[in-house]
Amino acid sequence: MFSNGLENYREKIEDSLSHFLPTVTTAPRVIHEAMRYSTCGGGKRIRGILTLLACQVVSGEWQKALPAACAIEMVHSYSLIHDDLPCMDDDAFRRGKPTNHRVYGENIAVLAGDALLTQAVETMLEYAPSGLERYYWEALHELIKASNTQGMIGGQVLDLEAEGKELNLKELQAIHRRKTGALIRVALRMGGIIGGGNERELEALSNYGESLGLTFQIIDDLLDREADPKVLGKAVGSDIKNNKATYPGIVGIEESRRLAALEVDKACKVLQPFGERGMFLQEFARELLKRDY
Amino acid sequence: MFSNGLENYREKIEDSLSHFLPTVTTAPRVIHEAMRYSTCGGGKRIRGILTLLACQVVSGEWQKALPAACAIEMVHSYSLIHDDLPCMDDDAFRRGKPTNHRVYGENIAVLAGDALLTQAVETMLEYAPSGLERYYWEALHELIKASNTQGMIGGQVLDLEAEGKELNLKELQAIHRRKTGALIRVALRMGGIIGGGNERELEALSNYGESLGLTFQIIDDLLDREADPKVLGKAVGSDIKNNKATYPGIVGIEESRRLAALEVDKACKVLQPFGERGMFLQEFARELLKRDY
Repeated sequence: MFSNGLENYREKIEDSLSHFLPTVTTAPRVIHEAMRYSTCGGGKRIRGILTLLACQVVSGEWQKALPAACAIEMVHSYSLIHDDLPCMDDDAFRRGKPTNHRVYGENIAVLAGDALLTQAVETMLEYAPSGLERYYWEALHELIKASNTQGMIGGQVLDLEAEGKELNLKELQAIHRRKTGALIRVALRMGGIIGGGNERELEALSNYGESLGLTFQIIDDLLDREADPKVLGKAVGSDIKNNKATYPGIVGIEESRRLAALEVDKACKVLQPFGERGMFLQEFARELLKRDY
Repeated sequence: MFSNGLENYREKIEDSLSHFLPTVTTAPRVIHEAMRYSTCGGGKRIRGILTLLACQVVSGEWQKALPAACAIEMVHSYSLIHDDLPCMDDDAFRRGKPTNHRVYGENIAVLAGDALLTQAVETMLEYAPSGLERYYWEALHELIKASNTQGMIGGQVLDLEAEGKELNLKELQAIHRRKTGALIRVALRMGGIIGGGNERELEALSNYGESLGLTFQIIDDLLDREADPKVLGKAVGSDIKNNKATYPGIVGIEESRRLAALEVDKACKVLQPFGERGMFLQEFARELLKRDY
């Protein structure tokens, strides 16, 4: 039942993404093909789904948050395209397919990333439901701050700087809090803002997002050690190969699992004030522990 | 007197840019250094100045348009950093200095471009003067559309596709209308919107912008043939070297000059309804014909 519910949201995001992105028959075609190649028809849509769920948890209509859910997925997609570039992480596969620059060339990949960030902002401005413009303004402001040099981009810079260095747990967490945490946290806050949540509710969603972001990263690191590359859709062992600091590398596999479970407990606890309405997000966090892709 | 006036606006934009961008002492420092390296302390600020002048021409206070003027300069700066990358135009110098990726590496240059686009949006959202949020929302919407695949990014794609091909004048203009024209046009529209201009006034500013954009590009092409590289701050003759379609290449130098003068006449004519208030923008267009850098 739980995964059926998620699948429903996932499909709605998939449909909306396809609707909000320019069609492949629009000139210049190659850039629209490249944008869709990396954004449509795949991905877990974790960030987008969190936006919809957070909207619902504060008693908003989740449909009203679809443009924001798609915008954050576009930002995520742009960051993956740029991170995969030869001058960055130089990755060959993503979601089971060759990376964007290997299909369209580096120049189009850079521009496709640029265009997805641009399209994310355009989607927030163009498709804000009537009457919710003020909330969308606020949500966009938070999305942009979370994507900037104190958030996602800053995390990528720290990650590049950390290559080949020995990191302790605190330094590793500082990177992840920006690189993946900021976007997961803002996914929840955007949903809360658009759903009309109050300060206290937004604060609870932020705390939930913090814990979820950490869990997400720990599991990601564990999967790179233990997953089946066919299920994961990309090569495993790349962290060790690239000499990257990871949770299992620093504290071991068992302790990593324990830390992840601890964060999930924290995440569920901060949602208690929402009562029944918070159950879906609690379940979401618990499911994360079991993910294998 | 005219150039004194311009210099005053230019300095205000310079100061505001420095204020709106993160300081170099903010961590992670390298990304903020890279953003500032390509954005501060140089550049003609044509787009930003046009935004201020357009605000004034519709009787708005130009100071209220400073965040928008800086945002468009950040967008321009991001596009230059990405266009200069080895996988794009592979340029070594810009504004008399080594290009961003030659100083900070390709990875930081990609991220600095991303961050400048992000910062442009943040500047519009964060520094919209109180009471003008609705106008800033509209101006940002137009800025983003002009920067997207139907505007600036689309123009860069068409430009990449045109490499080594024979273009006719119409095809060349289609590229420039997007690649440089869209941003110049929206610079004027943003100022008009923020200044509270009506539909008819925005239409006049758009038409002026169209003509100015074309003039700007023709002069740019002519400078690449004839300028002193020391004054220009970058190598000349690169269009011929890269086999790029240009106005002088297609219609010759004399005809290019005639076309530029014709567009300036058109630009000045559409401003006549503004009377005295339009004189500064008219002068601006005429000065463009004389520019040597």
